[in-house]
Amino acid sequence: MKYLVLIVFGFMTLGLHGQSDADYLKTIYKNSLINGQSYQWLDYLSNQIGGRLSGSLNAELAVEYTKSELENLGLDRVWLQPVMVPKWVRGNPEFAYIETAPGKTIAVNICALGGSVATSVQGLKAEVIEVQGIDELKLLDRSQVEGKIVFFNRPMQADLILTFEAYGGCVDQRYSGAGAGKLGAVAMIVRSMNLRLDDLPHTGSMSYGDTPVSERIPSSAISTNDAEMLSGMLKIDSSLKLYLKQNCRQLEDVLSYNVIGEITGSQFPNEIITVGGHLDSWDLGDGSHDDGAGCVQSMDVLRLLKISGIQPKRTIRVVLFMNEENGLRGGNAYAKEATQKGENHIFALESDSGGFTPRGFTFDGPDYKVDQILRWKPLFEPYLIHYFKKGGSGADIGPLKNSTNVLAGLRPDSQRYFDHHHAANDTFDAVNKRELELGAATMTSLIYLVDKYGLNANQSKLKD
Amino acid sequence: MKYLVLIVFGFMTLGLHGQSDADYLKTIYKNSLINGQSYQWLDYLSNQIGGRLSGSLNAELAVEYTKSELENLGLDRVWLQPVMVPKWVRGNPEFAYIETAPGKTIAVNICALGGSVATSVQGLKAEVIEVQGIDELKLLDRSQVEGKIVFFNRPMQADLILTFEAYGGCVDQRYSGAGAGKLGAVAMIVRSMNLRLDDLPHTGSMSYGDTPVSERIPSSAISTNDAEMLSGMLKIDSSLKLYLKQNCRQLEDVLSYNVIGEITGSQFPNEIITVGGHLDSWDLGDGSHDDGAGCVQSMDVLRLLKISGIQPKRTIRVVLFMNEENGLRGGNAYAKEATQKGENHIFALESDSGGFTPRGFTFDGPDYKVDQILRWKPLFEPYLIHYFKKGGSGADIGPLKNSTNVLAGLRPDSQRYFDHHHAANDTFDAVNKRELELGAATMTSLIYLVDKYGLNANQSKLKD
Repeated sequence: MKYLVLIVFGFMTLGLHGQSDADYLKTIYKNSLINGQSYQWLDYLSNQIGGRLSGSLNAELAVEYTKSELENLGLDRVWLQPVMVPKWVRGNPEFAYIETAPGKTIAVNICALGGSVATSVQGLKAEVIEVQGIDELKLLDRSQVEGKIVFFNRPMQADLILTFEAYGGCVDQRYSGAGAGKLGAVAMIVRSMNLRLDDLPHTGSMSYGDTPVSERIPSSAISTNDAEMLSGMLKIDSSLKLYLKQNCRQLEDVLSYNVIGEITGSQFPNEIITVGGHLDSWDLGDGSHDDGAGCVQSMDVLRLLKISGIQPKRTIRVVLFMNEENGLRGGNAYAKEATQKGENHIFALESDSGGFTPRGFTFDGPDYKVDQILRWKPLFEPYLIHYFKKGGSGADIGPLKNSTNVLAGLRPDSQRYFDHHHAANDTFDAVNKRELELGAATMTSLIYLVDKYGLNANQSKLKD
Repeated sequence: MKYLVLIVFGFMTLGLHGQSDADYLKTIYKNSLINGQSYQWLDYLSNQIGGRLSGSLNAELAVEYTKSELENLGLDRVWLQPVMVPKWVRGNPEFAYIETAPGKTIAVNICALGGSVATSVQGLKAEVIEVQGIDELKLLDRSQVEGKIVFFNRPMQADLILTFEAYGGCVDQRYSGAGAGKLGAVAMIVRSMNLRLDDLPHTGSMSYGDTPVSERIPSSAISTNDAEMLSGMLKIDSSLKLYLKQNCRQLEDVLSYNVIGEITGSQFPNEIITVGGHLDSWDLGDGSHDDGAGCVQSMDVLRLLKISGIQPKRTIRVVLFMNEENGLRGGNAYAKEATQKGENHIFALESDSGGFTPRGFTFDGPDYKVDQILRWKPLFEPYLIHYFKKGGSGADIGPLKNSTNVLAGLRPDSQRYFDHHHAANDTFDAVNKRELELGAATMTSLIYLVDKYGLNANQSKLKD
């Protein structure tokens, strides 16, 4: 009922005909900042449900909640797409300490990496060998590694302006570091992917590659403060020991869902424009930035189009992908079914870089189509959206890529993202309402333009 | 000693000759993000000293600390400029409640506005009349206002992208609302200048204009949540009463100081480039964003020039102004002495909009000089600095304006600024290290270019 009132209000006061594109963008931004729904949705997702690890009860509650909310919007279709997902569980809180002599210990903050095996119930204690990355590990002999815990301690590069580049320069340690088991390591720990010094360990996905189950070693992240301390202590006493205990487990795959809703296009219903984020999150925080923000923004794209009086020509589809964090099963399943059905996905936009002030987009597609989009940039200038570049899009929509479509990623300000990423402080209070709403409006504006003009160099004239 | 090492390191590794402007900017940003000092200075200013209201002990401690730190940088001159400042004290915490019937009360969060008189020691209790601004008050008869508390409740306009514009559209209620005393009001309260709903009252300066002392009324701010509640309750019961108690006082002016340091220009020492922020703050928080951030960034401009191997041609002067918040005495005194001495201030830059991710600058000066600066914009693109506009500069440097110089203001992202402005949550934890350091680097880069080329249309060729 609440939505009905909003929709009528929107059509009556702000969605009048005869408006220029600039007028429509103004209406969209105004509606998001004054009548946005994204923040209230995120409040529920974060504070009433919480962290939504694939296969967890919370993930299923989030599926039910967002499906119900999409149904309340009066879309043309809302449905669930089944997908089998991995179910990894953390178990009891992890425990670790540095031991410099029998009985002389200092507790450190660690967390198991997603997908890691447990230690034995007694935990394990071993000497530590510090390396600055995978390449440095490769230079070591088995004799230097065997029986030890390998400690990957290359920090994120602070002088890179785009923090995702700094992440990209380090995350191989986390993802592939367990390969140290092949050299006889008994465990691996990795410095948290965090640009600041604090006490929070940051989890994230890891892989054992082709390592046989029997040779897989426990893998965890250590907070940046404790990584610094451990590194400093190792310089003084290379024979100190680290004790680790974790009892995480990989269970059988379970059934879960992508949550999908659409407004069917009035003129070109077979041309599909997808917008989405991922509904699953890690379990330490409540997944507000990663990626509750992207989900609620994507949901609000369809609602903002409606209350701004925009009737899409093409089909606009919101997809809340399941299992981006540790499997990408939702993204793969969505693209597979789209291919099987011969669906024509002309454009897809993902928001999975946090709910911070939007700065622009990156685009992946044929040059002439990206060039068409770049010509819309001046329309965004009043909203301080200036970053339109060729580049990556998003993990979930990646499988949709073909030779003709355009994939895009929302690019918010990235400075604070890795303060929260995959850690216990990725929580609702770290999201600013206006920043979230500006992101939703920016996404809606781009979707509006792609829908109106299509992606074809010959149709790219702006009317104002 | 620490600085000496850094300086030598800077000259040796990053300040080599033969670099392009792009190279110098890269060095400056790298030094700020890797070897910046601004965050550590702010930590001390915020956590070891705290809120620095003009005339307070903390303000004097801040003068001593920053002078000492500037001296440690090995500048050519460091000095204090005496200035008499107002001394207003808050006294005991304020107390207020809504009374709907005898004994039925609900506490609300208020704080006295800076410069307000106290209530009597018993406090005051009166009916409330709500208005949406000064203009609406002017439409009322004395009979509607007399004996009542005037409640100014116009919210900041949420759909403006630049939040300072929304502030500008409301702050007259806070600054001039006490004029309601002339219509017989017994007190005024104003909705806090805050774009979000929370429980924190936001203080700020107010003026009684030409109102005689005997007719001045107590003036305070109420939190946005409580403003909403009070407004809602008034719609149900217009005869409810509000109780207020505050015992703030205006004391005699006291002696304080602007803190100034400079690197004397090697070629044009009489051409002065000033960079600054204001050292005083309000008393509720610790003044980290307003304007501890601007002070430490300005201090780091001179340090970053040094460690980046840049020997300025012109005189670069950092000024930490005293008393921006409730008097502007420091800014006025600085400009007055500059005029008396016949100093040639060719350019001044102020950072007083928070320590958030920098987006660019606004410039106030002759078109041909501003046009010269705008041509440097591409150099800033790698750092996502895109906002170069004509506009205001800063309150403290405003008095330096003449027909030939250029004044500039750093423009950080403004979305979160008014969540903290003048409230108890303007604290160190709300400042992100990288965002602060990016601001310092952006300021340093602009100062570097102004120093290198001067501000003259004929000297504006870029060498790279």
